[in-house]
Amino acid sequence: MNTLPASGGAVPPLGPTVVIGAGLVGASIGMALTAAGVAVQLVDLLPAHARVAATLGAGQTAPHPPEDVEVVVVAVPPDHIATTVIDALKRWPKATVTDVGSVKEGPAAEISAAAGAERYVGSHPMAGSQQAGPLTASADLFRDRTWVIALPDAQQAEHGEHANRVARLARSCGATVVVMSPGDHDRAVARVSHLPHLASILVAQGMLEGPAGYLQLAGQGLRDVTRIAGSDPHLWRQIIGGNRSAIRAELEGLRGRLDRIIDDLDDDERLTQDLEEGRAGTRRIPGKHGAAPQSFAKVTVEIPDQPGALAALFQQIGETNVEDLQIEHDQARNLGYLAIFVSPEDADAVAERMRGLGWRVS
Amino acid sequence: MNTLPASGGAVPPLGPTVVIGAGLVGASIGMALTAAGVAVQLVDLLPAHARVAATLGAGQTAPHPPEDVEVVVVAVPPDHIATTVIDALKRWPKATVTDVGSVKEGPAAEISAAAGAERYVGSHPMAGSQQAGPLTASADLFRDRTWVIALPDAQQAEHGEHANRVARLARSCGATVVVMSPGDHDRAVARVSHLPHLASILVAQGMLEGPAGYLQLAGQGLRDVTRIAGSDPHLWRQIIGGNRSAIRAELEGLRGRLDRIIDDLDDDERLTQDLEEGRAGTRRIPGKHGAAPQSFAKVTVEIPDQPGALAALFQQIGETNVEDLQIEHDQARNLGYLAIFVSPEDADAVAERMRGLGWRVS
Repeated sequence: MNTLPASGGAVPPLGPTVVIGAGLVGASIGMALTAAGVAVQLVDLLPAHARVAATLGAGQTAPHPPEDVEVVVVAVPPDHIATTVIDALKRWPKATVTDVGSVKEGPAAEISAAAGAERYVGSHPMAGSQQAGPLTASADLFRDRTWVIALPDAQQAEHGEHANRVARLARSCGATVVVMSPGDHDRAVARVSHLPHLASILVAQGMLEGPAGYLQLAGQGLRDVTRIAGSDPHLWRQIIGGNRSAIRAELEGLRGRLDRIIDDLDDDERLTQDLEEGRAGTRRIPGKHGAAPQSFAKVTVEIPDQPGALAALFQQIGETNVEDLQIEHDQARNLGYLAIFVSPEDADAVAERMRGLGWRVS
Repeated sequence: MNTLPASGGAVPPLGPTVVIGAGLVGASIGMALTAAGVAVQLVDLLPAHARVAATLGAGQTAPHPPEDVEVVVVAVPPDHIATTVIDALKRWPKATVTDVGSVKEGPAAEISAAAGAERYVGSHPMAGSQQAGPLTASADLFRDRTWVIALPDAQQAEHGEHANRVARLARSCGATVVVMSPGDHDRAVARVSHLPHLASILVAQGMLEGPAGYLQLAGQGLRDVTRIAGSDPHLWRQIIGGNRSAIRAELEGLRGRLDRIIDDLDDDERLTQDLEEGRAGTRRIPGKHGAAPQSFAKVTVEIPDQPGALAALFQQIGETNVEDLQIEHDQARNLGYLAIFVSPEDADAVAERMRGLGWRVS
């Protein structure tokens, strides 16, 4: 896996681009490209969808776009991607053709024998929603998100020019480009997208049984875990159906861990270890915009005895850019401390300021 | 399961109340009660926690609260609930004693033989966070949330006065009271809280294996499914350890569904059915504040040919309280429609207004 060289400055605008499929992803690409100054032509089997997308600023509706476009983006449901790409390679004989589907190996294999296949480079922007259709589209859908370009190492040279065009497309939408082989991509999404989806389904299925009154006790945890299970079953049947072997391996891994946690239920130590492993797993997941976990410096202040003084301390802390607060207790001396976490570069100034205000800082 | 009679008006304020344990839940109860005019005394093994909670408005710190309080709330970690309740029944011989732990049957059995057990009524507010400690406490933590009072049917009469006091406590915090038997409560939370937690752990554990690069593809779905796996492992070991038999049944149900979905992977029809069951399950889960799913009336407007006109339509729709929008396409007539979903009582007025503005409304 590697990243294509960044363009080192402004991305040169793409030439005329056709987007086939004016659903959430297609319409959002149209809006982002239009905002970036690209001439976008929209095609959809359902003209009403293309018309609504055009109204939202996703481009021009064009039942028969001209032959001389630079890029064609295929944003149709998974089961129709390969045939739509093969048609597009024929209809636009000079264009770079890409798709934005969730699975890459199967369609690539199907397309590889078609005429013009050297102009096809598959891709996958990691953004979407449980919503569908152009009405929820947004020019910002891909901002700071990862956009995978799927390219077998052996073919990087052959596809160079076309891969670079797809990278410019992704960057014009505000995304960060990552290059992976189709197989690596499919194994990665099986783990970080398709398995969580099916785990969400398995938990949600359980809510069909038993007294409805049980559900009065539902809280935010259940709602978060089951949110993606509310997605369109027909779309997800196609996504999962396109990535069966990688998903089967993930589901079998899940079954192994499930069997182990059932065995560990009566053993406090092993159960704690399972829970610690889960928490450690969450810490490997990058933040919303791919930000790496940051480390902070700690400023420790003695908690005073008078409640009024502590209220003043909170107010004074409020003027600092505080990342976290923790209470620490010295059992032996029966003293409490407030640990204030700030950026390493701010730590000295914060400590000095708190000292100046009369606090005991360590 | 039933609901205690509502108080039919303002809740009479509780008498002096002791809260033992100034963590997130205890401090939040203290803040809500203080705001409701109740005299709250805070006790914590770590005086610094009680002191910080008091500063935040959760009551007075009191290492030795007087004997004549009305209610004692035990808000300590699960493993310490039974012994702390038994101590409290002794130390405050006239008070109603409740706890706010996540599991009810085990502690109730342990407490039932103690002196004063008739003054104990267990409860469980359905609110919390993956955070811990008084620093993230809030007087609004329980607003509109369900607060379970765990009461075996046979004992309702015996516990009447004490159950009513605990109900007043819950309502003073803004919560809605639901009465269940301890066994029903524990089976319900196994399904809607403990199983989702363990499913979240099982998915998060999977992120420890494989190339870190896979995680660059993580999106909001994975983050939602694994959020609760980031919670404190020691607290959750105690919660799960207290509800083993109900959780074992849920985990075995999950294994049955997992085996079935693995079998169904190659069968498009059965896979679709599994995904549809999951979505149906999510629709049984009440909304954030326990709101029942609402039904809407549909106003259908023909989508005009001119993009400018459609932009005007969106602007005019924006002035209505719109719940949802959908595009509908009439394949035979090649016409698009916009379905506008509004409250049933608004539908006629919206239709008339759109007609008045020149739209074709059906």
